[in-house]
Amino acid sequence: MMEKRDMLYEGKAKKVFKTDDPNLYVIEYKDDATAFNGQKRDQIAGKGELNNKISALFFELLRSKGLDSHYVKRLSDREQLVRRVTIIPLEVVVRNIAAGSLAKRLGWEEGRELPRPVVEFYYKSDELGDPLINESHIAVLGVATPEQLDDITTQALKINEILTAYLRARNILLVDFKLEFGLDAEGRVLLADEISPDTCRFWDATTREKLDKDRFRRDLGRVEEAYEEVLHRLGGQ
Amino acid sequence: MMEKRDMLYEGKAKKVFKTDDPNLYVIEYKDDATAFNGQKRDQIAGKGELNNKISALFFELLRSKGLDSHYVKRLSDREQLVRRVTIIPLEVVVRNIAAGSLAKRLGWEEGRELPRPVVEFYYKSDELGDPLINESHIAVLGVATPEQLDDITTQALKINEILTAYLRARNILLVDFKLEFGLDAEGRVLLADEISPDTCRFWDATTREKLDKDRFRRDLGRVEEAYEEVLHRLGGQ
Ligand SMILES: Nc1ncnc2c1ncn2[C@@H]1O[C@H](COP(=O)(O)OP(=O)(O)O)[C@@H](O)[C@H]1O
Ligand SMILES: Nc1ncnc2c1ncn2[C@@H]1O[C@H](COP(=O)(O)OP(=O)(O)O)[C@@H](O)[C@H]1O
Ligand SMILES: [Mg+2]
Ligand SMILES: [Mg+2]
Repeated sequence: MMEKRDMLYEGKAKKVFKTDDPNLYVIEYKDDATAFNGQKRDQIAGKGELNNKISALFFELLRSKGLDSHYVKRLSDREQLVRRVTIIPLEVVVRNIAAGSLAKRLGWEEGRELPRPVVEFYYKSDELGDPLINESHIAVLGVATPEQLDDITTQALKINEILTAYLRARNILLVDFKLEFGLDAEGRVLLADEISPDTCRFWDATTREKLDKDRFRRDLGRVEEAYEEVLHRLGGQ
Repeated sequence: MMEKRDMLYEGKAKKVFKTDDPNLYVIEYKDDATAFNGQKRDQIAGKGELNNKISALFFELLRSKGLDSHYVKRLSDREQLVRRVTIIPLEVVVRNIAAGSLAKRLGWEEGRELPRPVVEFYYKSDELGDPLINESHIAVLGVATPEQLDDITTQALKINEILTAYLRARNILLVDFKLEFGLDAEGRVLLADEISPDTCRFWDATTREKLDKDRFRRDLGRVEEAYEEVLHRLGGQ
């Protein structure tokens, strides 16, 4: 079995640990919740376990559709084994329905369907507040080559198609979501990080009830219950 | 002679008039100065005349290098004759040196040279505060096709090369500038609006003294003198 060793770093939602295999990490999902660049903080009992399970199910779904990621397997209630990558410091956001900052940016009402998916890149920098950037900023920052960006965009749109269809069949609208990609030992662009109610907007397709972190951001209550509902609709427990 | 007729609209810096030729407009440059989305306002005596002359010289320079624009000719101290276009509601910004919002966005100190030009698109909307947008937002808004965007980008980069070389020979650094494009009667993408110290950042190449609207924005004084200095270095009077 894989030996979990030194903690490499602790982020806002997860801890990353080395293992005795230099190409594998263990990710431990925490109950900590933060929003607005860390200004709002709380603990949500059971969130770490729910997100670990939901994320694992999504990565398994993507694998079954031929889309590889850093995910190797789930190890326990809070832990998964992943491949080590060098994270590209971009938050890659795909959107299907106007919400949050997009609704503000374009002046579209929240809930309005976009005629086609929107892909956005945010520079992953807590100091700068994760600013929206474009391809020419990315070239100047040197964080990804144009080829890597194309690869990321293609994968992000494919992931959107797979997740949208899968969730729609479970009466959930995939409003938008954030992905992170990394480079593996061979320099391949690999999906990493997590896919969970912390990083996606999920709405009940009938009632449009929010089943995601917006319940925490906007103080709507019943956060854990919403995350549980998502896990159940995905067939997990 | 062209007959100047009804005013079509009045913007923050210019008035646009119809003529007896439906394909031609007269643009009249005003002395009004605004900044921060209209929050800061003043009059700068002589600015309209200076910007009209500077803009005309730049459009003539571009024409001599094979780059066509809406500019037909200068009619008077404050007026120029232009071709009517349907303005594409994008502010197209090209940057060579970090300054202003780019310095903030990327966390780069003002004055740092960019390894390559940055091209940005802002959605021209006073209500929304001219937000930065990317190609996928533009597709969703439907304000330009991908082909038109490529055309705009190619023209903007060529304009940057022509203006940078020309200004460098006059001891001025072209830090960044904003362009607007429109569609003419045949659907061609044509450079429009103005190119002036209101829409460019010009720095003296030796002293890095600001010779542009930042003198107004940042209350540095001697605004009119700076604009005059630019006109003189361009050989105008
Ligand atoms: N496979 C991986 N290899 C290396 N780092 C990873 C991998 N997957 C995710 N990470 C990184 O783990 C860190 C911890 O995650 P998280 O707590 O969500 O951090 P953050 O506070 O940046 O959101 C993040 O920096 C994330 O990019
Ligand atoms: N050739 C043209 N045909 C039609 N409209 C034009 C042309 N050139 C510039 N305009 C428009 O003229 C308006 C007036 O200019 P300006 O005072 O700078 O306006 P703003 O307040 O939007 O900056 C702007 O909306 C600009 O886009
Ligand atoms: Mg994270
Ligand atoms: Mg203007």
